[in-house]
Amino acid sequence: MPIGEFELIERYLSRLGAQRDDVVLGVGDDAALLRPPPGLELVLATDTIVEGEHFPAGMAPADIGHRVLAVNLSDLAAMGAEPAWALLALTLSRADPEWMREFASGLHEIARQHGVALVGGDTTAGPFTATVAIAGFVPPGQALRRSGARPGDEIWVSGTPGDAAAGLQVLLGQLDAPADVLEPLQQKFRRPEPRIGLGLVLRGIASACIDISDGLAGDLGKLCAASGVGGDIDSTLLPRSAAMRGAMDPEAARRVALAGGDDYELLFTLPPGTDAAALERAAGVAITRIGLVVEGTGVAVDGEPVEREIGHGFDHFR
Amino acid sequence: MPIGEFELIERYLSRLGAQRDDVVLGVGDDAALLRPPPGLELVLATDTIVEGEHFPAGMAPADIGHRVLAVNLSDLAAMGAEPAWALLALTLSRADPEWMREFASGLHEIARQHGVALVGGDTTAGPFTATVAIAGFVPPGQALRRSGARPGDEIWVSGTPGDAAAGLQVLLGQLDAPADVLEPLQQKFRRPEPRIGLGLVLRGIASACIDISDGLAGDLGKLCAASGVGGDIDSTLLPRSAAMRGAMDPEAARRVALAGGDDYELLFTLPPGTDAAALERAAGVAITRIGLVVEGTGVAVDGEPVEREIGHGFDHFR
Repeated sequence: MPIGEFELIERYLSRLGAQRDDVVLGVGDDAALLRPPPGLELVLATDTIVEGEHFPAGMAPADIGHRVLAVNLSDLAAMGAEPAWALLALTLSRADPEWMREFASGLHEIARQHGVALVGGDTTAGPFTATVAIAGFVPPGQALRRSGARPGDEIWVSGTPGDAAAGLQVLLGQLDAPADVLEPLQQKFRRPEPRIGLGLVLRGIASACIDISDGLAGDLGKLCAASGVGGDIDSTLLPRSAAMRGAMDPEAARRVALAGGDDYELLFTLPPGTDAAALERAAGVAITRIGLVVEGTGVAVDGEPVEREIGHGFDHFR
Repeated sequence: MPIGEFELIERYLSRLGAQRDDVVLGVGDDAALLRPPPGLELVLATDTIVEGEHFPAGMAPADIGHRVLAVNLSDLAAMGAEPAWALLALTLSRADPEWMREFASGLHEIARQHGVALVGGDTTAGPFTATVAIAGFVPPGQALRRSGARPGDEIWVSGTPGDAAAGLQVLLGQLDAPADVLEPLQQKFRRPEPRIGLGLVLRGIASACIDISDGLAGDLGKLCAASGVGGDIDSTLLPRSAAMRGAMDPEAARRVALAGGDDYELLFTLPPGTDAAALERAAGVAITRIGLVVEGTGVAVDGEPVEREIGHGFDHFR
């Protein structure tokens, strides 16, 4: 006998993530009841992942569970917010208990790691998509926005952008290199790490921030547009991982660092003279200066206006 | 040239619904910034609608826009919550500006009607689904839950359950009757009205509440299970609309009232002696007593345990 929707939800999704005192009522009623901390701003975001669009069909269910929360946590990181609660809307083509168990375990692990309680959801039948809505908090006026970059600010990025896009090529069998080179790249795609800690450290310091989900150059373009400024990137400054050096020639690596998506690193601007070394120590993640905010509009790489196909970012409808 | 995702979102989804003073930052950054009212509990829910599963393919885009918010508002109504903010995650197979304009107008209209601001979202490519996450507020301890029904309480329902399911049959060309009979039923399916006002009136009065999305008998079963009680329905008390009397014989109408979904009416329990006439006046919607909460478990209709196919509710995986 196939297992029914209600039992599935109850069994696998009812107590995922952290147990939090501010959850008055979690999964199981028409809605969740929550106690927001007094005096803070609520930060809300939602992101969907679609099979075949955001990850290859057949990816391990635990990776998918990780991913759907990670991409949402990344939005909170980009705001400098502390995560609290999540809702999960899952559309599944069939009810497979084993798949659900693994998906739930991947989701549970990253939720607990970031102190997030899964407080509600919906399960429907159809082609696979997973949507999370996430809620977090930030002190009033301290959220990181896209719009505060000023000419003269430095452009910084966390981690080594491009690794995830290269990792996707590995998963798709499109990249050839020794296994010990490919494994870290693949891992970077399969298990993106949202930069929550860095976002918290950047509060009150970074002048603007965005997460790189659609590619560094495209997302920088959005930050610049929101701030009414231009951005100059020096591609020789782009950080490159050891794995990337082993897997791609410099030109391919440069291109994937600028145009590849799915990094979920933070791209941010710092006023000149900021003590970046102190930030890096506090955040516990490598950050690299890659360019400068300038007067004007648009993004340039090594003095050349970024090509449209790189600059626009990942656009699902093109 | 096809219009890109970012322009579409910006053009149609950036300022939907009510303008609210508690929205610090709406659509356009990595997340929305909101100011929760002090001292209230936050109420969060999410619901997805899938084409071909929750509504027929080809339904008018304005009806779909209405529907995705209405089904979420209905969850807040069932908690007695006042709605405030919504996020929209939209998966579309293609970017059609005219479709988006109409979808947005349907969403906008019902959002404004209920004072809801659309504060964020995500648009992705894939088979159509729409997911809303909705946020509202309720004074601490006053939320309506499923779990408070006690033996001796009366079972009440708003509106005329079954109309929406009959309306879906009309849309699918499966029900034959004069147009003036069919039109109100169809309208009931196309434009469900969430019972927000009734939910607010029931605060502190109803002992339990649930919205009827999956069918009256099945949803009553969930309320009874959550409360640890049984429910006896007298089917002669089921309210029937004039349209329904013209469209279906009594036995078919009874069946669709008990098992049909998509009503988005409220099903609730009142302690004996409650002044229901005063509630009805305050809420501005008809409510009808249809049965009694009893000791035990499960739902019975006219003394017979409800059949499994009626009682289980709408289960997407059966």
